[in-house]
Amino acid sequence: MLVQKYGGSSVATPEKIRYVAGKIKGRVEEGKKLVVVVSAMGKSTNALIALGGEVSSSPSPREMDMLLSTGEQVSSALLAMALDDLGVAAMSCNAFQLEMTTTGSFSNARIVDMNLGKLRGLLEFRDVLVVTGFQGINPEGDVTTLGRGGSDTSAVAIAAKCGCPCEIYSDVDGIYTCDPHAVKNARKLEYITFDEMLELSSLGAKVLHSRAVEIAKKYSVRLYCASTFSDERGTNVVNTLPEWLEQPVVTGVTADSNQMRVNIARMPGSMEAMSALFRELADRGVNVDMISTVNENGYSHLTFTVVDAGGKTVLETVKSTLAPWEGWAVAEDRNVSKVSAVGVGMKSAPGVAARFFTALGRKDVRMLGTTTSEIKISALVPREQEGEALQALVDEFGLGDRG
Amino acid sequence: MLVQKYGGSSVATPEKIRYVAGKIKGRVEEGKKLVVVVSAMGKSTNALIALGGEVSSSPSPREMDMLLSTGEQVSSALLAMALDDLGVAAMSCNAFQLEMTTTGSFSNARIVDMNLGKLRGLLEFRDVLVVTGFQGINPEGDVTTLGRGGSDTSAVAIAAKCGCPCEIYSDVDGIYTCDPHAVKNARKLEYITFDEMLELSSLGAKVLHSRAVEIAKKYSVRLYCASTFSDERGTNVVNTLPEWLEQPVVTGVTADSNQMRVNIARMPGSMEAMSALFRELADRGVNVDMISTVNENGYSHLTFTVVDAGGKTVLETVKSTLAPWEGWAVAEDRNVSKVSAVGVGMKSAPGVAARFFTALGRKDVRMLGTTTSEIKISALVPREQEGEALQALVDEFGLGDRG
Repeated sequence: MLVQKYGGSSVATPEKIRYVAGKIKGRVEEGKKLVVVVSAMGKSTNALIALGGEVSSSPSPREMDMLLSTGEQVSSALLAMALDDLGVAAMSCNAFQLEMTTTGSFSNARIVDMNLGKLRGLLEFRDVLVVTGFQGINPEGDVTTLGRGGSDTSAVAIAAKCGCPCEIYSDVDGIYTCDPHAVKNARKLEYITFDEMLELSSLGAKVLHSRAVEIAKKYSVRLYCASTFSDERGTNVVNTLPEWLEQPVVTGVTADSNQMRVNIARMPGSMEAMSALFRELADRGVNVDMISTVNENGYSHLTFTVVDAGGKTVLETVKSTLAPWEGWAVAEDRNVSKVSAVGVGMKSAPGVAARFFTALGRKDVRMLGTTTSEIKISALVPREQEGEALQALVDEFGLGDRG
Repeated sequence: MLVQKYGGSSVATPEKIRYVAGKIKGRVEEGKKLVVVVSAMGKSTNALIALGGEVSSSPSPREMDMLLSTGEQVSSALLAMALDDLGVAAMSCNAFQLEMTTTGSFSNARIVDMNLGKLRGLLEFRDVLVVTGFQGINPEGDVTTLGRGGSDTSAVAIAAKCGCPCEIYSDVDGIYTCDPHAVKNARKLEYITFDEMLELSSLGAKVLHSRAVEIAKKYSVRLYCASTFSDERGTNVVNTLPEWLEQPVVTGVTADSNQMRVNIARMPGSMEAMSALFRELADRGVNVDMISTVNENGYSHLTFTVVDAGGKTVLETVKSTLAPWEGWAVAEDRNVSKVSAVGVGMKSAPGVAARFFTALGRKDVRMLGTTTSEIKISALVPREQEGEALQALVDEFGLGDRG
């Protein structure tokens, strides 16, 4: 048994749907039973969102999910038709039919369970079930959706439940050491671990939804990501690399420009102000990263970074929390980028941080802050130096084509 | 409590959906709880059928129903959004959620039951349920559809189950004594009986699906048909006319040009050939109407009419069944039309047939055949005389504007 997932661009037109059906037929002829999870056709989810926006300026989240879930029902019915045409015993199945239950929250629900017995029963008399991705039913019986990229999560959840591997097909042919648009000689990886994939989520988001990776890791689901329309080998996402594979120190590098740096000059010297500020930011759900302080003449200068989207909240919070004190000044800098190197091999290889900083230093990349975790080193750099920094790291850690 | 149904043209655009929401809001403000049944937006069902046709030349009926049912889910979610925007407590509901069960046959299923307790429960905390018309779930849990015009049936079935009236809104503003495109001075009826409506189905099909009328008759559901976008009074479809209303002899006239006339010259004289022919036609599901025979020199000339769509089957059946005999010749005539006058008042008014034939005769309309039932008289006429015949009947029975 096998789970496959086809993204929206893979089922964007009737021709592509027929192509995908042919591909599935090949696997059936190998003797496989398949559960195929599909996204909505091409940009049809966007079209439905736009339609909802024309009816209401703030559409009811429940009704939006009811609306959006039709996209996958269309593509699953069409793919089942195409399979039927090729003589493959297939049927489409929606969230009601598979009893795919989720939590209650609309537009961002989490899968709770599904009826495995029913799925197995349906597969007894046919070879392929085409399942609507991205959706489920909450305890009240409402339709819910799992958020953008949720079809990946549907596929991995089904594979986890069935205890079988999961193949994710899209218009991206695998996972690279670095975004090939940013660094030309980035190399496709044959293997990557779940932990690395999660750290590289900003890179991997185009290929694989990070929630799907979390579930795959939790239930040890073998993942394989490849292109729908090419026979080139893709990337395996696994718990641990195969033993025969030499463990690289760094597996991939990535950049995240959705960052904002906040500088507070002449921060009141007392710990009271500092702890009030971070407590307040935490209460408002702001994730603070890369904190550093420099003391000077009895004052601290405080610097930290946050995800750019939270920027406005952050400045308001700083101003209101520090209002009882005087003399400080806050400034923001959105022109920054966070460059990271990720690799489980770091755990056992000393000196990686030194190589990281040296590589950036050699190219005169300014480092505005750093953080490290067990398998990741990050540096905040000026946005205009992002590309240079990525290239320096790709070269240093042998992540290029001829690495 | 009240059931309303809005046709595809009534919810064809976001603007129209918002208009319909406003109309519903008005009824909620009168203190009503509403179940609103919607068709798919505009021509979207046709677009989905075309999409299915692009994927498969003979789409699986199960998957076609799965595909088509999304159209009503889109419109119901959008209408619920629009109601929500107006502050009306509403939610959309599909066939799974309402447990709308049907027979098994795809594309032409019949409603079996629905979960009334659930419907009542959902209406306890809100004023409007927007229900997907046209669809249900068969005993295997597959999505089924009820055939063209099936949303009318959904609406009337829900009204029957709830014991409440049903209003059908479309782009047609009521039921006329005759098709206004055929006879300019046709008059809108304030009341028509179920029996008349069923006999006039070819006329009423544009306004009301005949299966919906059958259910309404069986469960005495008060029906009201009117235009969505005008406040003009529509037509009430009822069991018996109100007592204060003078019962007309003829309520309406209609023409059906989907007819074919079959002539068999020199039919073998034995009853054997005749009965073999009609038995064979019945076995093939052909409905034969207006049979007449003329005997001449020991031969019969046999004439009968069938619905045009079955024409090819009929000629083949005649040829194969009469093969053992010799000397006969078969000819077809598609250039005919069946003109009918319908009225429950005929039962108690003698001489209606005479008036019918006299009216046509006065205009030199050739009558090629006739049939009558308790409340209907029909004549087969040359198609080019159809309009003239209708006008003659409208004038004779006072069905015009100044009738």
